[in-house]
This record gives sequence, C-alpha cells and structure tokens, in this order.
Amino acid sequence: MVSLGTEWIVDAHGCDPASLRSLPELQNFFARVIRELGLKTAGEPLWHVFPGEAGITGLVLLTESHLACHTFPERSFAAFNLYSCRELKEWPWADRLTAAMGAQQVRVRLVERGER
Amino acid sequence: MVSLGTEWIVDAHGCDPASLRSLPELQNFFARVIRELGLKTAGEPLWHVFPGEAGITGLVLLTESHLACHTFPERSFAAFNLYSCRELKEWPWADRLTAAMGAQQVRVRLVERGER
Repeated sequence: MVSLGTEWIVDAHGCDPASLRSLPELQNFFARVIRELGLKTAGEPLWHVFPGEAGITGLVLLTESHLACHTFPERSFAAFNLYSCRELKEWPWADRLTAAMGAQQVRVRLVERGER
Repeated sequence: MVSLGTEWIVDAHGCDPASLRSLPELQNFFARVIRELGLKTAGEPLWHVFPGEAGITGLVLLTESHLACHTFPERSFAAFNLYSCRELKEWPWADRLTAAMGAQQVRVRLVERGER
C-alpha cells in the first residue's frame, strides 16, 4: 500500500466556550502542535473570528501540508485537522485539548490519503 | 445524531502533472468549487508553490469552513478537503477533476464531524 500522507481528524467535545472564542488561546494551541510535532509553517496563518457569539477558524499552511481548526462555542465543540505528507510521531491530542480548553471527550480518526 | 459539519476527503489519482504544477489551473478549480457550491470566502486564499518539480498547496477560509488542496505531481496525485458546517448539495468531484486535470481515478470519502 502506498500512502501520500496521513490526516488526523480530531473532534473535541465539552470544551470551554470562552477558550473557543479566544484567538490568543487558539494561536497558542496551534503553536504547541507545530512546535511539539516539529512542523514547519509556510507563510502567515489565516485566522477568522466570526462575529458575536460565534467561533474562530484557523488555517496554517505547512511544508508538510496543513493544520486547521473550526470552533463552535455554542456547542462547546472544536474540530481540528492535521494533514501531513511526512510521517509524524504520535501526539497526545486528548491530553493537550483537555489541558488547553477543557475538552471532555476527544475523538481522533486517522485517514490515509492516496491509497490505491 | 447531531453533526457539526461534513468533510469531503477527495483523492484524485492519475492527474496530469503539468496541471498539478499550475497555480492558475488550481485557482480556477477552486473558483469553480466555490461558485458551483455557493460557498463564501473569508479573506484571501493562501497558496504555496513548492520549488522545482514539487507541487502546490492551497487553503481557502470559507464562512462555511475551509477548502484545501495538496498536489503531488511526481505521483500524479492531488488531495482535496472540503469541510462545510452548512449542508451542501452533491458535487461531481470525479467529473470535474477529470475535466480539469485529467484525473483517472477519484475517491470521495465523507466524514461527519462532531457526532456523538
């Protein structure tokens, strides 16, 4: 089997809504993912803070592929994607999301890309 | 079941390597996805053209979530992700990818986000 990268699809439930509306907290979280996995950014990240009580979207272009998040504070939910065409070590998504934003339930799914 | 969005994970094999190295062609393809699905962009897209014979990465922040691509011309492969927190109509990924970049085999996987 040939794979052209792995995607981590991470759903975090029961998060603190204030954290999911905090741009600095989400930026710190992205910085931690990038630092601890030894990823390399290419260009500036894109962040969009939706108005009112809504959430935040972040996208970072990596030389390995990309990192994305979408937060839904009204549902205490955050969705993360990490696509990497380079093999990465395991990363404790659940522990880190619990520590950073109080996540109570974290589901991590792996999808291999480009299999045939 | 509650879903907080759907992600389309699209793997296109057998593409024309020249198309996978063409920024205008990939930008046109993104524009078509966005137009035909009635998506709304938020801010400027991020594009990164890797040096030499390597591929291109594109990321677009949408009010509905995001659209991403990573191309691997040396493998005739392109990976697309579309995450939408709004329900979308079906879109003919295989037909469009065949027309735009000569894809010979297209695999579309749907992942529901935030189920619990």
